Amino acid sequence: MARSIARALAVPAWRPGRGAYEDRVAIEEPLEIRVNGAAVAVTLRTPGEDLELAAGFALTEGIARAAAEIQSVDLVDDVPPEARGNVVNVRVGAPGASDGTSRLTGRPAFISAACGVCGRGTLEAVRRRAEPLPDGPLVARAILASLPERLRTAQPTFDETGGLHAAGLFDLSGTLLAAREDVGRHNAVDKLVGWAALGGRLPLREALLCVSGRAGFEILLKAWIAAIPVVASVSAPSHLAVALAEEANLTLLGFVRGGTFAAYTGRERIQGAQ
Amino acid sequence: MARSIARALAVPAWRPGRGAYEDRVAIEEPLEIRVNGAAVAVTLRTPGEDLELAAGFALTEGIARAAAEIQSVDLVDDVPPEARGNVVNVRVGAPGASDGTSRLTGRPAFISAACGVCGRGTLEAVRRRAEPLPDGPLVARAILASLPERLRTAQPTFDETGGLHAAGLFDLSGTLLAAREDVGRHNAVDKLVGWAALGGRLPLREALLCVSGRAGFEILLKAWIAAIPVVASVSAPSHLAVALAEEANLTLLGFVRGGTFAAYTGRERIQGAQ
Repeated sequence: MARSIARALAVPAWRPGRGAYEDRVAIEEPLEIRVNGAAVAVTLRTPGEDLELAAGFALTEGIARAAAEIQSVDLVDDVPPEARGNVVNVRVGAPGASDGTSRLTGRPAFISAACGVCGRGTLEAVRRRAEPLPDGPLVARAILASLPERLRTAQPTFDETGGLHAAGLFDLSGTLLAAREDVGRHNAVDKLVGWAALGGRLPLREALLCVSGRAGFEILLKAWIAAIPVVASVSAPSHLAVALAEEANLTLLGFVRGGTFAAYTGRERIQGAQ
Repeated sequence: MARSIARALAVPAWRPGRGAYEDRVAIEEPLEIRVNGAAVAVTLRTPGEDLELAAGFALTEGIARAAAEIQSVDLVDDVPPEARGNVVNVRVGAPGASDGTSRLTGRPAFISAACGVCGRGTLEAVRRRAEPLPDGPLVARAILASLPERLRTAQPTFDETGGLHAAGLFDLSGTLLAAREDVGRHNAVDKLVGWAALGGRLPLREALLCVSGRAGFEILLKAWIAAIPVVASVSAPSHLAVALAEEANLTLLGFVRGGTFAAYTGRERIQGAQ
């Protein structure tokens, strides 16, 4: 299958004083995610790590309730030529079952009307899917403050285009485990969760997640599903993200920049902040 | 109906060296959008201008093909108490028809599998909904370069929380027509389109749109549907946004900052750039 996994593309541009030149922009293409053969979502994403993205999506949206329910993730070849590489199927079934068709739950719980469509109702829908995380581990303040800088070194396409979000997983000593870039903040996190799921690394009880954008409800939800105890954002959290982090017993850091940060929840995990 | 339209909320926070304090974070809550009584989407948004958001969503997703098809937009009161204020119904029908039930098209064309799930297929699906914009108008370079700064002065909640995206509509002399803030970039633009639709201001052939975030495919699509000829982003465009702007004969500016910008398409509208 001929398919480029380039993340940037040259396009003509023009600037006052500079005139015409070639610029590079991030690639954004739709990916259709199927579960047991049925289309459940189309997400605009930067191509690459699409199997991880689909696996992570299935987990964080509650379609698969555990990594063991993901039986396989494959590119779908039986599509028109121009869609090749942009359709992925996730087989989801009870662990050990030979037939995946029994476990398609359809749309995620928190996107259905059943949640009551309020912050509290949304949190209740999530609570049915995940337990609060256990206390610990302890993490050094300086390591938390350094995460965005460490993530930045793993962002080649951002350097090139200025147009990609990044998410990175780190161990407790601040060593990068994996980083992913995408035009969508949520996709970057789903790719990481999928990477962990397909590699048998879930739950991520000893990992730190750093994201290049804001920390909204959905980012925190994904971290919770993966059991990541610490989320560090270079920007602001939303009130619903703070509420979810509280509910999940998750440490939420915002404005991690200039060697400092604001801790909104779970500061018991920060060495010396108790 | 008791309902706060505050956009920010005080939460406890902690900083190294500063200790515990009160911070303010942006409010994020789910809004259920119904069309002719049926739920079609739940979006996480910052409360306020919800009728505009729902009207704009119906238009930019292609559920209503023109503002005249939007017969009414109302808060739905017949919901559990905790969901009040978070459910909006849009009545969509052929102009003049008394019954709106005939025009529910369901999910937007570009989120269905029918588009072929590729950049080209996506653009084709959109092309069936909108004609390329006419040439003109001409806009002064200095006005284009000043849009983000002008938008910034209309962002009270960002100043408070650092956590909201903004979108603003300007006339050709750079005068602000309307600005909207939201935790979601797309919602801020939908609110503007809805504002224009409900006020009989569509098509916006003489307006400039400035957005605080990146310019992705969906932002450009919304601008096209509203017939806005110029989109200015403080950050990077994606390749699919550039392709859509080309297709739409729309002027796309990126990295509008520091008194300059990069023009990716439609520079014929920039005075002196031809």
